[in-house]
Amino acid sequence: MNWEDLARQLTLKTPTKIVLLVLDGLGDLPTQGQTPLEEAHTPHLDALARESVCGVTDPVLMGITPGSGPAHLSLFGYDPTKYLLGRGILEALGIGVDVGPHDLVARGNFATLREGLIVDRRAGRIPTEENRRLCEQLNQAWQKKTHPQVTLYPGKEHRFVVKFTAPDLSDALSDADPQKENKPLTYTRALAPEAEETARLVNQFIDEVTELLKDEPKANTVLLRGFARHPTLPTMTELYQLHPAAIAHYPMYKGLAKLVGMEILEVGPKTEDIFHVLEENYHHYDFFYLHFKKTDSAGEDGHREAKIRAIEELDTFIPRLLQLKPEVLVVTSDHSTPCALKGHSWHPNPLLLHAATARIDQVERFSELACQAGHLGRFPALSVMPLMLAHAGKLKKFGA
Amino acid sequence: MNWEDLARQLTLKTPTKIVLLVLDGLGDLPTQGQTPLEEAHTPHLDALARESVCGVTDPVLMGITPGSGPAHLSLFGYDPTKYLLGRGILEALGIGVDVGPHDLVARGNFATLREGLIVDRRAGRIPTEENRRLCEQLNQAWQKKTHPQVTLYPGKEHRFVVKFTAPDLSDALSDADPQKENKPLTYTRALAPEAEETARLVNQFIDEVTELLKDEPKANTVLLRGFARHPTLPTMTELYQLHPAAIAHYPMYKGLAKLVGMEILEVGPKTEDIFHVLEENYHHYDFFYLHFKKTDSAGEDGHREAKIRAIEELDTFIPRLLQLKPEVLVVTSDHSTPCALKGHSWHPNPLLLHAATARIDQVERFSELACQAGHLGRFPALSVMPLMLAHAGKLKKFGA
Repeated sequence: MNWEDLARQLTLKTPTKIVLLVLDGLGDLPTQGQTPLEEAHTPHLDALARESVCGVTDPVLMGITPGSGPAHLSLFGYDPTKYLLGRGILEALGIGVDVGPHDLVARGNFATLREGLIVDRRAGRIPTEENRRLCEQLNQAWQKKTHPQVTLYPGKEHRFVVKFTAPDLSDALSDADPQKENKPLTYTRALAPEAEETARLVNQFIDEVTELLKDEPKANTVLLRGFARHPTLPTMTELYQLHPAAIAHYPMYKGLAKLVGMEILEVGPKTEDIFHVLEENYHHYDFFYLHFKKTDSAGEDGHREAKIRAIEELDTFIPRLLQLKPEVLVVTSDHSTPCALKGHSWHPNPLLLHAATARIDQVERFSELACQAGHLGRFPALSVMPLMLAHAGKLKKFGA
Repeated sequence: MNWEDLARQLTLKTPTKIVLLVLDGLGDLPTQGQTPLEEAHTPHLDALARESVCGVTDPVLMGITPGSGPAHLSLFGYDPTKYLLGRGILEALGIGVDVGPHDLVARGNFATLREGLIVDRRAGRIPTEENRRLCEQLNQAWQKKTHPQVTLYPGKEHRFVVKFTAPDLSDALSDADPQKENKPLTYTRALAPEAEETARLVNQFIDEVTELLKDEPKANTVLLRGFARHPTLPTMTELYQLHPAAIAHYPMYKGLAKLVGMEILEVGPKTEDIFHVLEENYHHYDFFYLHFKKTDSAGEDGHREAKIRAIEELDTFIPRLLQLKPEVLVVTSDHSTPCALKGHSWHPNPLLLHAATARIDQVERFSELACQAGHLGRFPALSVMPLMLAHAGKLKKFGA
């Protein structure tokens, strides 16, 4: 029996509240003797660590670097190797596209077709403005089309997301992308018999776009990759009997939260706004997922000083959060983003869990190494949700 | 999805190099206040531990004592509870028998048959010389036999390995061994319909041996156990895109390395030769498995002083190894062999991982207890391969 089966049997509705605060990409490497988290001045997080039980988590498996999708699913208690999120879905979530059960999405490029060959897979990286204009023009052209309904959502430069809406669409489709330049325009192929009709509709779309854009100098066709339908995940309400809410600035994290059935609360652009929205809504939900992005962005940029400043900024809001007295507060990360690697990594995440039932350990600071010595030790991130529910009194005894 | 599935999706070919140095049976118990590893003077391993990330590994599951097969498979990233190696295979590998896809092997005893009863299951433990003579005589007698081809390989005293070669042999066979003395000569039985013909061939072999040896005073028949065919394992090249090589003195470890597709490098008998061969071949491979046996042999003999000396000897070669600057160096063991137990045990193995991306911890010494406090904590040995690949930059991100 796995955690999901146990959760369905053992969870209990109670008035207690859980706050999960995720500092995205927090973990790092001691490239200058200390990690950014060790170097940062974090009096409030450190004081909290002293009154908490600590540990470090592996998002998927030791050594595996997770994308944002798998890393968050794990924290929400969903096995990320069971619930696979297609690239198209993540891309769509990332630019805020709403994906429903009858939708099929894909990542797209505008590209240049000349004499039957794709001569530029990125249409000369057309400006984002140009991209917006083209998407608008195409959406206009198709607004009366109903089978399927088609909508394009512009991304940066030549990138977009396309959403097809119709009953019974399949995502068992090959990429409609020659991968290399100076190859012929490539159509999608059905990878399963039930995808034949969808492949026909998608290829008809490619032909229509190419016809509509035939007078464009650069962006006169499209390539499509990573076809994906909406994944079916049980909601956190079904699994845990929670009434959960998400407070996040970026579309990707709002999208992930929505996939597991959280309500998405509107929030202003500042860090302070996250805590303000939490306070405003505190009585209406029993689980809050708070997402702080700046630590990850600084890591991706390799900007150590910015990462330290981001951590120090976040630290100042801890007292305000504690005033709400949530029964369970977890501060952790989804994955590490070391400045030296300028990207996600496999290194484990520091975690503290604050609750009346925590077996408080000797950890004096909130940092990667200090937390490792905590009573929770090193453990899979998939165990964070059971621990939070347990400390909130929301899990019954297993067996008699 | 398990590690093997992830590996097939995520591994990447890069020029970086990994060295896995296995000190066989290293872990021990503090029978005289300290373990042999703690008592040994190991300035180089200790200095390396200070610049590494450390932990301890469980070869299979906590409490499970592994044989050399499962313990090594785990380190190579193969789930040892999925890939079961028959005793016959291990015995064959142990004496250097080459086992191919059309081979069936079994462990054998010469035994004494009198008036239809097995009166001595070990033929009075005949001298190894006698064993060699008998195997040679029997191989001579069968050299023209083609279905199956049969070859005997002498072991120590009364023990041998027999290899049958023919298409479509099955290993679904019961042991041809009465287990107790003063029981009748026992034939093998087919445990599945497809093994009927193999059972007939094996029993015909038993009858032929018994006829050929009828004038021998003691060794006048054979018992056969642990029938096993060549296991089919995906190679490390298929799974990880590695070009791996093994440097080991003993046939068992060469055989295990060969099972997972490593190339076996010829090596002289001294410890120094291991490092010499590594240097000579360093540019031709991207993964090296180095096997050091003396620690295990000393443990098996219960010879604490010898174990300490073996560890100290190995320590002197660490600087030479570091001069090669492998991107990833792991020093660990396959299993513990405590002197007090004179055999393998279930105690976890100390491990250090040296790499530019290691989150270096506070561990000051390379020992069982010191490593436990490292940032890797206590973890399954099956995670060693993903960690090595990750630190070598050979694993892509999982999901988006």
